[in-house]
Amino acid sequence: MDARRTAIVLIEYQNDFTTEGGAMHGAVAASMARQNMLSNSAELIRRARAAGAQILWTPIRFAEGYREITREPYGVLKGIVDAKAFRAGTWGAEITEALPRSESDIMIEGKRGLDAFASTNLDFILRSLGIETVAVCGFLTNCCVESTVRSAYERGFTVHALSDCCAATSHEAHDGAVAYDLPLFAHVEPHRAFLDRL
Amino acid sequence: MDARRTAIVLIEYQNDFTTEGGAMHGAVAASMARQNMLSNSAELIRRARAAGAQILWTPIRFAEGYREITREPYGVLKGIVDAKAFRAGTWGAEITEALPRSESDIMIEGKRGLDAFASTNLDFILRSLGIETVAVCGFLTNCCVESTVRSAYERGFTVHALSDCCAATSHEAHDGAVAYDLPLFAHVEPHRAFLDRL
Amino acid sequence: MDARRTAIVLIEYQNDFTTEGGAMHGAVAASMARQNMLSNSAELIRRARAAGAQILWTPIRFAEGYREITREPYGVLKGIVDAKAFRAGTWGAEITEALPRSESDIMIEGKRGLDAFASTNLDFILRSLGIETVAVCGFLTNCCVESTVRSAYERGFTVHALSDCCAATSHEAHDGAVAYDLPLFAHVEPHRAFLDRL
Amino acid sequence: MDARRTAIVLIEYQNDFTTEGGAMHGAVAASMARQNMLSNSAELIRRARAAGAQILWTPIRFAEGYREITREPYGVLKGIVDAKAFRAGTWGAEITEALPRSESDIMIEGKRGLDAFASTNLDFILRSLGIETVAVCGFLTNCCVESTVRSAYERGFTVHALSDCCAATSHEAHDGAVAYDLPLFAHVEPHRAFLDRL
Repeated sequence: MDARRTAIVLIEYQNDFTTEGGAMHGAVAASMARQNMLSNSAELIRRARAAGAQILWTPIRFAEGYREITREPYGVLKGIVDAKAFRAGTWGAEITEALPRSESDIMIEGKRGLDAFASTNLDFILRSLGIETVAVCGFLTNCCVESTVRSAYERGFTVHALSDCCAATSHEAHDGAVAYDLPLFAHVEPHRAFLDRL
Repeated sequence: MDARRTAIVLIEYQNDFTTEGGAMHGAVAASMARQNMLSNSAELIRRARAAGAQILWTPIRFAEGYREITREPYGVLKGIVDAKAFRAGTWGAEITEALPRSESDIMIEGKRGLDAFASTNLDFILRSLGIETVAVCGFLTNCCVESTVRSAYERGFTVHALSDCCAATSHEAHDGAVAYDLPLFAHVEPHRAFLDRL
Repeated sequence: MDARRTAIVLIEYQNDFTTEGGAMHGAVAASMARQNMLSNSAELIRRARAAGAQILWTPIRFAEGYREITREPYGVLKGIVDAKAFRAGTWGAEITEALPRSESDIMIEGKRGLDAFASTNLDFILRSLGIETVAVCGFLTNCCVESTVRSAYERGFTVHALSDCCAATSHEAHDGAVAYDLPLFAHVEPHRAFLDRL
Repeated sequence: MDARRTAIVLIEYQNDFTTEGGAMHGAVAASMARQNMLSNSAELIRRARAAGAQILWTPIRFAEGYREITREPYGVLKGIVDAKAFRAGTWGAEITEALPRSESDIMIEGKRGLDAFASTNLDFILRSLGIETVAVCGFLTNCCVESTVRSAYERGFTVHALSDCCAATSHEAHDGAVAYDLPLFAHVEPHRAFLDRL
């Protein structure tokens, strides 16, 4: 793996997920703890950045009132609206301070759906930078992480899904994605196995 | 539900999946049998078509040599190449005769990936026809069906995933998608529950 | 035309284009004046909104340093970087006060390229709202307006391009787009012809 | 330029455009002749292929009856339907024999719209092959060529538009695209200037 052609795509490491008091933290706390995903992610970010990989953050944010979501949401977007999560300008929508930021990172604004490619210019940036390999991690293993992994595979990237840097709303949902779904579209592995080849 | 604004998207009902002797039939036969998915799908197609819904077929096909896939495939595309499945012009790539066809159906050519929207003009046709609701079924529950469901949700459709008209390579993979993943993006239900409201 | 299924997509009515002192205003001032595009646009917005059409604003904005653009931009993005235009948080990136806003309008954030669909969730919102017809106007006639028109046509919308609500960097560029390019993808007409059928 | 990271994207070099008797040949014959575009394209293909660049053909084809186009087409798609052009299985839809083919070329099937990326897996293949630079040529300068150029720019490629390998339905349409539109999104140059740096 050529680190200069590799990017780490960090999905929704925002207080509403990551931090005590966040609107949806309770739903993911057990899964975060079991995988030790936050400190694994911190190590991943530090070491990948030091090796020369590009770090990209892809927060999800909505305007107050969620006008940019359909009037009658269902599925996962309804869950976000009902929880009043990820409202732009609130503490819950901010990226957690538990992870190391750097001026060399790129902030991808505009994510309003599941797949991080679908409503942003993530693909443009990755191609502009000559990125060929992406490693994806964050929240939720079987929702936004998996949608982004599927889309990255479909777009021709070499995709890695870092299983111990992800969390879901239940152990079953996390384990099912890791066992049956992600391997169809990605090299699924713990973050150290990935870092050791970077 | 307004049937004239509803489409049934049929994923890969091709001999290589559906029929004895097909390159990947052995991998899905048990799941097909347990859900009785082929005869359920036949009933779905007949009744939905009669109600005025648009039927769309989305076969996947590759040229001999799989030149339109990356040189070093991995994941699910590698499985297709290794099995020599879905080669254009072969019997295995043809749509099964077990399901009822009609001249009013639309054949979507060009599918070469997982998400039926990603390499076709499916979205264009659905919008041109004024379709607002899509029901998705076929193969595999947790692969192409789920990728298409995720993409349809992301594109703003009202999405139905018809659980007893899908099959996967194991009961676990099918059940996991139905329990944990598809409900995030779709109304998951058996085909008769869907038909009764059409 | 059913106004409730119609949207007005307003491209980059921001101070850097629209207003004396804006970073790129000088380049478009003559074209704006000749078409009288700003007051035509104001009338369009007021009357279309009153008729029940959905108004959407699609500003383009970049972070300081333009990190989300390639390191070696060329073409139109280079022009933006060189002019230091459309930086988030500056007056130049704000939408002009010369046009009437309403709480019922939708603000589409995330535009970082030419086609307003390409890096936003515009398509999702339009589909969620049941929109079938879009009218496009703003800046530049032959750049972002035309890219958005081409993309809307490709996505199956009925597209209108409102010629007297657009401006370009020269009369030739505007007139060429109106004469040769936009008619391939849109009903090209002045705003009153459009409004009279709404 | 690294030839192994460069692709030549050939738009619609099919008999209906290229050849006497083709359904739309009359509309483009004068422009083809003035630019000498067919023999320039032949030289481009031969020399670029010899240098190690990947050649991709992107024909457009529709089923009899044009079921995969909207029921009430307008704009350029209406022109295709009215001319009965590009019907799969007909001579007119075949690629011209006037250009040199090779087994190492890639045939991109599925193009049913203007932008060659929009309804195909072109992007997937280009990324899989590590392509960073694309040169676009073919028909029509201001329609499918320009839509593909705009889309390639938006996707982060380094884009070249080869002006003397394109043709349109009038000199004005060709010249306007070359003068005002393509330079916003591409390095516009004759094919020999491009080849000399390959």
